[in-house]
Amino acid sequence: MWLTDPLLAIDFRDIEAAAKRLQGVAHRTPVLTSRIANARCGADIYFKAESFQRMGAFKFRGAYNALAQFSPDQRSAGVVAFSSGNHAQAIAYAARLLGIPNVIIMPQDAPISKINATRGYQENQKDCEVLLYDRYSQDREEISRRLADERGMTLIPPFNHPDIMAGQGTAALELIEQVEELTDGGALDSMLVCVGGGGLLAGSAVAAKHLSASIELWGVEPEAGNDVQQSLSQGKIVSIDTPKTIADGAQTQQCGSLTFPIIQRFVQGVVTVSDLALIDTMRWMAERMKIIIEPTGALGAAALFSQANGLPDMRGKKIGVILSGGNIDIRYFSQLVSG
Amino acid sequence: MWLTDPLLAIDFRDIEAAAKRLQGVAHRTPVLTSRIANARCGADIYFKAESFQRMGAFKFRGAYNALAQFSPDQRSAGVVAFSSGNHAQAIAYAARLLGIPNVIIMPQDAPISKINATRGYQENQKDCEVLLYDRYSQDREEISRRLADERGMTLIPPFNHPDIMAGQGTAALELIEQVEELTDGGALDSMLVCVGGGGLLAGSAVAAKHLSASIELWGVEPEAGNDVQQSLSQGKIVSIDTPKTIADGAQTQQCGSLTFPIIQRFVQGVVTVSDLALIDTMRWMAERMKIIIEPTGALGAAALFSQANGLPDMRGKKIGVILSGGNIDIRYFSQLVSG
Repeated sequence: MWLTDPLLAIDFRDIEAAAKRLQGVAHRTPVLTSRIANARCGADIYFKAESFQRMGAFKFRGAYNALAQFSPDQRSAGVVAFSSGNHAQAIAYAARLLGIPNVIIMPQDAPISKINATRGYQENQKDCEVLLYDRYSQDREEISRRLADERGMTLIPPFNHPDIMAGQGTAALELIEQVEELTDGGALDSMLVCVGGGGLLAGSAVAAKHLSASIELWGVEPEAGNDVQQSLSQGKIVSIDTPKTIADGAQTQQCGSLTFPIIQRFVQGVVTVSDLALIDTMRWMAERMKIIIEPTGALGAAALFSQANGLPDMRGKKIGVILSGGNIDIRYFSQLVSG
Repeated sequence: MWLTDPLLAIDFRDIEAAAKRLQGVAHRTPVLTSRIANARCGADIYFKAESFQRMGAFKFRGAYNALAQFSPDQRSAGVVAFSSGNHAQAIAYAARLLGIPNVIIMPQDAPISKINATRGYQENQKDCEVLLYDRYSQDREEISRRLADERGMTLIPPFNHPDIMAGQGTAALELIEQVEELTDGGALDSMLVCVGGGGLLAGSAVAAKHLSASIELWGVEPEAGNDVQQSLSQGKIVSIDTPKTIADGAQTQQCGSLTFPIIQRFVQGVVTVSDLALIDTMRWMAERMKIIIEPTGALGAAALFSQANGLPDMRGKKIGVILSGGNIDIRYFSQLVSG
C-alpha cells in the first residue's frame, strides 16, 4: 500500500530517505526479547531499545535527519532549538557531528544534568551556547524566533517538523525489518509507541502502515496528560495544562499541526498509563532485562504490562514496543525504582 | 596454534563442542561498544554483555554444557549443586530445560532474592528443592557429597569441572568471532576477564589462545581477595579467608585444581580493583551505557577504567571485556550507585 496524501506532512519516501541519511551515523539499535516478558503477557514482544541510540534516545534520528538537509547557508548560520530534554541534546550532538553552530534554549530550572549534557556536546565547538530563560516570565518560542530572525539561524522544533517526523519514523522501520529477520519473515500485529508531541508516533505510523496495512498502531500517553487521546475523540487538537508526570518527555500541552493529522489517519487509538505503572515497568526492566529506561521510554511497555484500558487483547500476537530512551539521572532512577 | 596438553583439563575442541551444545539454547549475547568508553580509555573496547545471557549471567553456559552431557541414568537421578549465587540459578534453570531433578544447596542467610529466583526455576518441576544449610556450623561440600552418594545424584561444582570450564569458554569464543564481524576481520589485542574460581578465565584463555597466539589474557580480582594473583606469583594455589567485597561472584577462597594450571599457562597476569572502582564503573555503565551490571560483572571494565596497577598501557589497542552478569537486587544496586 502506498500512502501519499498531499494533506499529510510526510510519506514513506521521506522515511526511506531519512534512513539513508542516518545509515552509519545513527545506531541500528538492538531489538530485545525476553522469555519472561513474553510469558507475562502471553505474547511475543519485540522491544526496540532506543535507549542504546546515540545520546540515549530516538531523538537523535530526527535531529540528524533535519540538520543533514541544511543548505550551506543554513549550516554556516546555525540552528536554534528549544527543549528541556532529549531534543536539546539531540540537536547539540547532531550539530556537533555536522559542524553546525547551535544555540539551545533551556529553562533555567532544567535539571543541571541535562544542561551539562547539552553543554558537553557543545564543548570545543565554535559559536555554540545554551541560553537559559525563565519559564514563568519568558516565552521560549518567542526567544527562539527572535534569535532565528536576528542571526539568520534555522529553528528546528522538537516534533512539529517533517524532517524530524521522518527521522523518528526510521526507528519503526528498523523494528519491522529486524522482527522480519528475527522471525524469518514474521510481521508485527501491533506496535506501541509513546506520545508527547507525536513526532515518533506519526513517523512510526507512516512507516508501519506503508509496510503492513493490517498492523495496529497504538499511542501511549501518561494518565496525567492525555491530550492526544482527547484530541482523537474530539477530532481536533486539544491543549491541556502541562501535565504533572514523571514522563518528562511526554509533558507536552498539545501535539503538532503536522503530527496530529497523521495520528488521526493511521493510529488505532491512544491509551494511558499511570506514573506508578511506569515505575513498576522501569523496575521490572532493570531487574529482568538489566536495562535502564527513562520514564517516557517505559510508556509502551507499561501499557502492555498493565493492560491499559482500551487496549485490545494482545495474547498470541506479535507486538513491537519502542523503548524510546534511557536518559535519566541515575540517582533519580534509583529513587524511583527503590520506592 | 593447537594447544593440547594432557595435563590441562580442557582444550579448544571441548569449547567447540560446548558451543555446538549451546547453539539455540544460550543467547549469543550482544557485543556493546561505546564511543564515550573508547574516548575515556583511548582504546577500542568491546563489551561482551553476558548480563543479557539467559538467567542473567555467563554461568548458564557451563551449567547447560555440563547437564546436557548427562547419561540417561544421571538424568533420572538428578544433579546436586552448591552455590549462593549465579551457579545455583544456572543449574536449576538448565536442569529445568532438560527435565533433570535437582537439589541446590544454599546458605540459609543467602539473599532471599537469590533463593527465590532459584526456587522460581524449580517451580512445577518434579523432585527439585533448595536445601538450606548453616554456613557457620555445616560444610556444604560434605552435605552435597552425602546427598550425591545417598541418592546417586551427580554433583556439579561451580568452576572446577571440565564441562563447566568449556561452557564458560564459549563466551570468549563468541566475543572473538563477533569482534571479527564488527571490525571486518579485526582481532583483539587483550581480553579482561573477572576471576572467582577461574572457570570463566580458564575457559576464555583456552578459547582465545587457540584462536590467537598473540592475544593477552588478563584476569581481574577484587582487591580484597587476590588469591589467584598470589597463586600465580607463588606458583601454587593459595587459599585465603573469604574476602569482604561487594563482588559476591568472586568471593572464592581459592581457585580450582583444574582452572589454575590453565590460568598459569595462558594468562598474562591478574590485576585487582577496589570496591569503590566497581561502584564507579557500575554507575558509569548505568548512566552512559544504560545497562545494569552486578559488581562481579564490572571487574574487567573497572580494571580498564581505573588503570589497575600492573595492566600495561592499552591505548590504541582493541580490548575485549566480559561483563559477566547483571544479577543484583535492584534496591541494593540503587543504594550502591547513589552512594
